[in-house]
Amino acid sequence: MKELTLKNLDDFLRGTAFLGTGGGGNPYVGGLMLRQELEKGINCNLIKGSEVDDDALIIPIAVMGAPTVIVERLPNAKSCIKALRKMEELMGKKATALIGAEAGGINGTLPFILSSYTGLPVIDGDGMGRAFPELQMCTFGVYGVNCSPVIVRDEKDNEIIVNAENNHASEMFARVVCMQMGTKSEIALYPMTGKQMKETSVHHTCTLAYEIGKSIREARDTGKSPLNGIIDYFKTSFDKRFCKLLFEGKVTDLLRESTDGWAKGTVKLTSLSDPNQEMVVQLQNEFLIALVDNKPVAMVPDLICLVDLETAEPITAEDVKYGQRVNVIGVSVPENMRSKEALDTFGPVPFKVWDEYIPIEKIS
Amino acid sequence: MKELTLKNLDDFLRGTAFLGTGGGGNPYVGGLMLRQELEKGINCNLIKGSEVDDDALIIPIAVMGAPTVIVERLPNAKSCIKALRKMEELMGKKATALIGAEAGGINGTLPFILSSYTGLPVIDGDGMGRAFPELQMCTFGVYGVNCSPVIVRDEKDNEIIVNAENNHASEMFARVVCMQMGTKSEIALYPMTGKQMKETSVHHTCTLAYEIGKSIREARDTGKSPLNGIIDYFKTSFDKRFCKLLFEGKVTDLLRESTDGWAKGTVKLTSLSDPNQEMVVQLQNEFLIALVDNKPVAMVPDLICLVDLETAEPITAEDVKYGQRVNVIGVSVPENMRSKEALDTFGPVPFKVWDEYIPIEKIS
Repeated sequence: MKELTLKNLDDFLRGTAFLGTGGGGNPYVGGLMLRQELEKGINCNLIKGSEVDDDALIIPIAVMGAPTVIVERLPNAKSCIKALRKMEELMGKKATALIGAEAGGINGTLPFILSSYTGLPVIDGDGMGRAFPELQMCTFGVYGVNCSPVIVRDEKDNEIIVNAENNHASEMFARVVCMQMGTKSEIALYPMTGKQMKETSVHHTCTLAYEIGKSIREARDTGKSPLNGIIDYFKTSFDKRFCKLLFEGKVTDLLRESTDGWAKGTVKLTSLSDPNQEMVVQLQNEFLIALVDNKPVAMVPDLICLVDLETAEPITAEDVKYGQRVNVIGVSVPENMRSKEALDTFGPVPFKVWDEYIPIEKIS
Repeated sequence: MKELTLKNLDDFLRGTAFLGTGGGGNPYVGGLMLRQELEKGINCNLIKGSEVDDDALIIPIAVMGAPTVIVERLPNAKSCIKALRKMEELMGKKATALIGAEAGGINGTLPFILSSYTGLPVIDGDGMGRAFPELQMCTFGVYGVNCSPVIVRDEKDNEIIVNAENNHASEMFARVVCMQMGTKSEIALYPMTGKQMKETSVHHTCTLAYEIGKSIREARDTGKSPLNGIIDYFKTSFDKRFCKLLFEGKVTDLLRESTDGWAKGTVKLTSLSDPNQEMVVQLQNEFLIALVDNKPVAMVPDLICLVDLETAEPITAEDVKYGQRVNVIGVSVPENMRSKEALDTFGPVPFKVWDEYIPIEKIS
């Protein structure tokens, strides 16, 4: 993908929803905002990380909060731009490009929305190749970029600048501020050089999102199973990944609360082929672990994606409903998300969902 | 008072404890910090507000949090200085003088501690002539000074800058940050010009504190009743106030919790002369209202001060103990703390303790 246009927007949005693994904010909302801009004839340039100068200033922009809130209280583009400008002011130079903090969900689309307003290009990459609930859960930080200063803003022009002792502290201060703002804030964070961006990003994740979305649409259009469209895509894609259908089931129980600044809960699925077999998926904004008979079949940072049984349309955590029929798909993640440092930050142990990381391809 | 020295320190501390009306942080702690500096031979200059140029930059500094916490986790002078320097940086000029946000408690001594480090003079005045629990409860704000930017810091160099839409929002954001810091933070706030300081302060409150403390000591030294020392002082002082003994009693019940970032609770007293008569004092860091037979005898912003029955030593809310014998003294406040705007901010209605303000002299 070279640019985001009206033509490839729907495929891209579908892919960001898939990479969101339930979270990252509902891309439908970001899609509406982006479509409005693209309809004016604006295209948003996507550039490779390698195209950027080492000393350029790269600024990640995101919306922070609980997806259950953000679906009703939309991100504010003006507030995002003010966060960007404030960060430029603090850094003493202009940004060369934008990058998503996370490729999944609404935060996958947000850099493009800002690109349409500012003309800045978007870098094909992000800090996690998916979505995660906390600010320190980011390859930028895992590989040495300081999360602070974090600009935390809302549409009423409340603006809080966090400078914290470490990235986890940045998260904790930004989180209480975000909760005070009503659990939705526009943020700028992890300001970095072009060199840092090249070394710490998960690359090509915007293109990946687009191609995942496209594989689902093309399968639908040609009468093929959309599920197989996804699975076949990962076999041949530029970014080869292990991908597997983990479970085919019906939602038979659902607990979902907006608490501590997050959407937290559990989804219970009953197998369509064997009514005695159950899958339990735990979520904190994103789907964190999938267990069958109390044994994990996939866990963070690997992707656990719920898609509609018929259409393979990705389902976000706040859209999961009782009685829904879904396929649960597991996908592996790149090596820089599986290092010791990475797993210490966003593996199953810091999430307290399992006591050691087992790669999805080893479980299967 | 022209300067704070080792000679007048104890009187001053006793007076800040009295003006603290139970809160503002225990002045014992501030006294230890200040004595350490004064013993090096440093004196801290006190200047009148009227001596300062209209375009000077005046910066209030304070410690924020629950007194029950601050008595164990002391204010950090270096962190205060960093807050001061950050505020100067944001304002683009150097401070001419310091002023206390509140004259009561540890916040009455803090500007002098900073003065000893920086050489800056302290202005004889503050923003409430007492102590209050919330940042917007300040004559600076009541009469038009913006509470933001608020620099909220801790000893680990976590530094959060709050820019909020109004002074109440500044309080709410700073409060959640302070709680995240462990309910103790060093703050700089309400940056103002000399002109604003002259127009919005409660003046001469440092001298007032010193003279209250002195009146208690002199009564003790001459064998007079220390309680009468205080009452007589207010009859003849430069700052004439209504002052009255409200109750003579024993602490027979006490509820005190550190919650929501404050010390909150109730003190119940039984009269020493009539065991059927009770006084109830409600507190949120400070003593807010005193009721006898469910009828108020004094309420915010008037001062409600608990002092030891024998020595008239002021008792802070965290030092109140079961069985303690105390005198409860009520003192009126200056007119700029009783205007409609002032009462809308720190009267009994915003504190939700009574439905209208009744001046202490009218109740009596």
